[in-house]
Amino acid sequence: MTTTPTGDLTVVTAGAAMFADTLRSQGVATTEVSWLPPVAGSEGALTSVMLDRRRTAANAQALDAMTAAGASLVDVRPARDALGLDAGHFLHAGPPIDWERMSGPLRGALVGAVVYEGLVETPEQAERRLAAGDFSFEPAHHLGAVGPMAGVVSPSMWMFELHDDVHDRRSWCSLNEGLGKVLRYGAYSPDVIDRLRWMGDVLGPALQTATRSAGPIDVLAIVAQMIQMGDEGHNRNRAGTLMLLKEWLPALIRSGLPTDDVAAVVEFVSGNDHFFLNVVMPACKLMTVAGNGVPGSTVVTTMARNGTDFGIQVSGLGDRWFTGPAQVAEGLYLANFGPDDANPDIGDSAITETAGIGGFAMATAPAIVRFVGGTVADALATTRRMYDLCVGENRRWALPIMDFRGTPTGIDATSVLRTGQLPQINTGMAGRVAGVGQVGAGLVSPPMECFEAAVEGLAEAVPPTA
Amino acid sequence: MTTTPTGDLTVVTAGAAMFADTLRSQGVATTEVSWLPPVAGSEGALTSVMLDRRRTAANAQALDAMTAAGASLVDVRPARDALGLDAGHFLHAGPPIDWERMSGPLRGALVGAVVYEGLVETPEQAERRLAAGDFSFEPAHHLGAVGPMAGVVSPSMWMFELHDDVHDRRSWCSLNEGLGKVLRYGAYSPDVIDRLRWMGDVLGPALQTATRSAGPIDVLAIVAQMIQMGDEGHNRNRAGTLMLLKEWLPALIRSGLPTDDVAAVVEFVSGNDHFFLNVVMPACKLMTVAGNGVPGSTVVTTMARNGTDFGIQVSGLGDRWFTGPAQVAEGLYLANFGPDDANPDIGDSAITETAGIGGFAMATAPAIVRFVGGTVADALATTRRMYDLCVGENRRWALPIMDFRGTPTGIDATSVLRTGQLPQINTGMAGRVAGVGQVGAGLVSPPMECFEAAVEGLAEAVPPTA
Repeated sequence: MTTTPTGDLTVVTAGAAMFADTLRSQGVATTEVSWLPPVAGSEGALTSVMLDRRRTAANAQALDAMTAAGASLVDVRPARDALGLDAGHFLHAGPPIDWERMSGPLRGALVGAVVYEGLVETPEQAERRLAAGDFSFEPAHHLGAVGPMAGVVSPSMWMFELHDDVHDRRSWCSLNEGLGKVLRYGAYSPDVIDRLRWMGDVLGPALQTATRSAGPIDVLAIVAQMIQMGDEGHNRNRAGTLMLLKEWLPALIRSGLPTDDVAAVVEFVSGNDHFFLNVVMPACKLMTVAGNGVPGSTVVTTMARNGTDFGIQVSGLGDRWFTGPAQVAEGLYLANFGPDDANPDIGDSAITETAGIGGFAMATAPAIVRFVGGTVADALATTRRMYDLCVGENRRWALPIMDFRGTPTGIDATSVLRTGQLPQINTGMAGRVAGVGQVGAGLVSPPMECFEAAVEGLAEAVPPTA
Repeated sequence: MTTTPTGDLTVVTAGAAMFADTLRSQGVATTEVSWLPPVAGSEGALTSVMLDRRRTAANAQALDAMTAAGASLVDVRPARDALGLDAGHFLHAGPPIDWERMSGPLRGALVGAVVYEGLVETPEQAERRLAAGDFSFEPAHHLGAVGPMAGVVSPSMWMFELHDDVHDRRSWCSLNEGLGKVLRYGAYSPDVIDRLRWMGDVLGPALQTATRSAGPIDVLAIVAQMIQMGDEGHNRNRAGTLMLLKEWLPALIRSGLPTDDVAAVVEFVSGNDHFFLNVVMPACKLMTVAGNGVPGSTVVTTMARNGTDFGIQVSGLGDRWFTGPAQVAEGLYLANFGPDDANPDIGDSAITETAGIGGFAMATAPAIVRFVGGTVADALATTRRMYDLCVGENRRWALPIMDFRGTPTGIDATSVLRTGQLPQINTGMAGRVAGVGQVGAGLVSPPMECFEAAVEGLAEAVPPTA
């Protein structure tokens, strides 16, 4: 027998759950403090950022702005008009990058876009002129736009235009082409270009007519429904796609457009479970940009990849990029593809996780493990873990399986460093080689370097008086 | 200190989990046998049915037939043609009942149907002539059809026609009117009748055109998808409705019907989250009837309510009804309605639970607790409990949150008596008074009497040689 203290005992435990479990099994009241060792080498910067007196209020302000933002689909129009893109200028996903460092799928998508714009005759010519610096490109994020995978946008491509009527701000994304051999996965074969032409000639104008007639469509309300319907908004958008289509349908049918075009548009949209992703993404961009630029805030407002670098932005430092090497996802492969075929992580679609859905809401979409890998238990555990990294919850987006708790929202860069836990992203995988297209889907995390660099940047910006 | 047995110890425990938990916490290998006390008074019949040597194989055969059945939507046409209904003859939900014992909502729906058919001028005349026995009615189940709530069908109402190509059998259900003040909830005001006329003049013919052109639509495949999308197929059919609409859309758009009619049909279908229920129900009827009529099988093949009686059928005894008093659901009320306004349980829609979805699949549809009441933990526990009442699982319908386990399928009447646990149904609630319509939605169980009577019937049918 051992001697135990007498009287009412309350113990506070930190870290490993074994301490608390043992005490509880002996009937001792226990308050558990979750604790994991911080990332080695980051302690200095982390300490000064966490001592910044502005931090708590700044993060609350950033979260409030994110969760208060509106996002309605108000128009569909060419990037030339929507974003003022000039001929020969292109947008791409992720942080800035030059041609030399670009991965295969980003090069492939740019090649396809140059061909699509009619600036050259052949993919070979496109590649030569891109390498020669005859065309210019910049991140879509720099114009407030976002693009999945390669995220390449050219002036003739039609864009969804969303408006945040709380902060009077707009965001844009191209129209989703479907899965497999598509431009955004780096494919540029003639069928890819032909599909883009049909999207420009028929799909875009039809959706413009329907959107202008159906009035602003509340995208955040559709997301609130879809996350009760097995979609997490990044790699499952099946219910969301049908709900968006439902909003357009009466106007589409009454549009006066040729019946065959209306039917083809309906078949194209309803036949692509990912169609709504390109509407969710600019909605998430409107949320996250609303939380950006709050001095002292450590909330992550952008996560984006160009296929080579993973870049993040934090609210307190506005539009500065902090980058590290993009990782290769682990997951499930299409057809005969395998890990050697996969390009490192690419696309602006991690804006969904930045806004609290996608990998952060996997608990609500257990069927997604059949697409991205892992188990249902992992999916539930992932969402629970993400709450620990976030400054709060979005009560407008309730997760039924979490007892209607709001989505975990506002990644705190200091929480990442403090615990060594990284945000969970689920994502498509592009082929390494330009022209291949999609090879699979899986789970991936940002490199820790982004968060280390961001917290160092935040530390340098702490006012001396703080 | 107490003395423990030495050597490798394995213990079998039965009933209360505390025994097994205690042993396991001491590192003793434990095999748990779940056990609950049987329903008092049923032991004699239960013993002879459980000793029936045909039972195990008969139940396996019934389950195989249920899960092997097909169910495709092949046509939409008036009940007059589909079921050969004559003028003045009506179908209703649940087991047989005469006018005197009928509840308010069933009387209300019959009154509305008599008015709709133009057999009288006013609801008062309809009621008088129904009471006088001028019209005839019988359970929809007697013709292989099913109907939600009052389930009243008249010759001019249009029906979904489903075909099981494995067993070459057909089933039917009327078209869903929406929620609130509708005929199936016992309402019969002029707007209810007007809506039925529009459904007969525009909706039915349009869906006939679309269904005949879109070819057989695999309803079971849509159900397989919807239960991965937060629908349990009884009180949530939101994703299912949109997926069915998706199948019809191209044909509807190309139908050559007036644009305004096509748009109105699309708005009506997509605006009613319950529309697909009336397609799920006959699909479930095709499954359950496929398992009916296996001598010695204790599998429940029908659960249906007429608002007064709850009736079940068991496979081994074919079409015999075993009834008990219908219960009032506990749940959530619309507007200013409360428990005093609710009629006892009504409708054939418990065919969904009989086929393993609805209340049996609530784990996959946690958002439903906001419609029928209860907690998310209850929803998960309910599905787990239903596995204990069923002879097997339907592997074609995987529940992601249950690690893709198949839906619990084939309620074993002996398991109900053996454990005292009742099947869980979630359901809409009709107003007690004819004409009121829907007052809420909630959770309900059959009366134990049905299962006692069925097992007694099965006991009488056990061959003396068994």
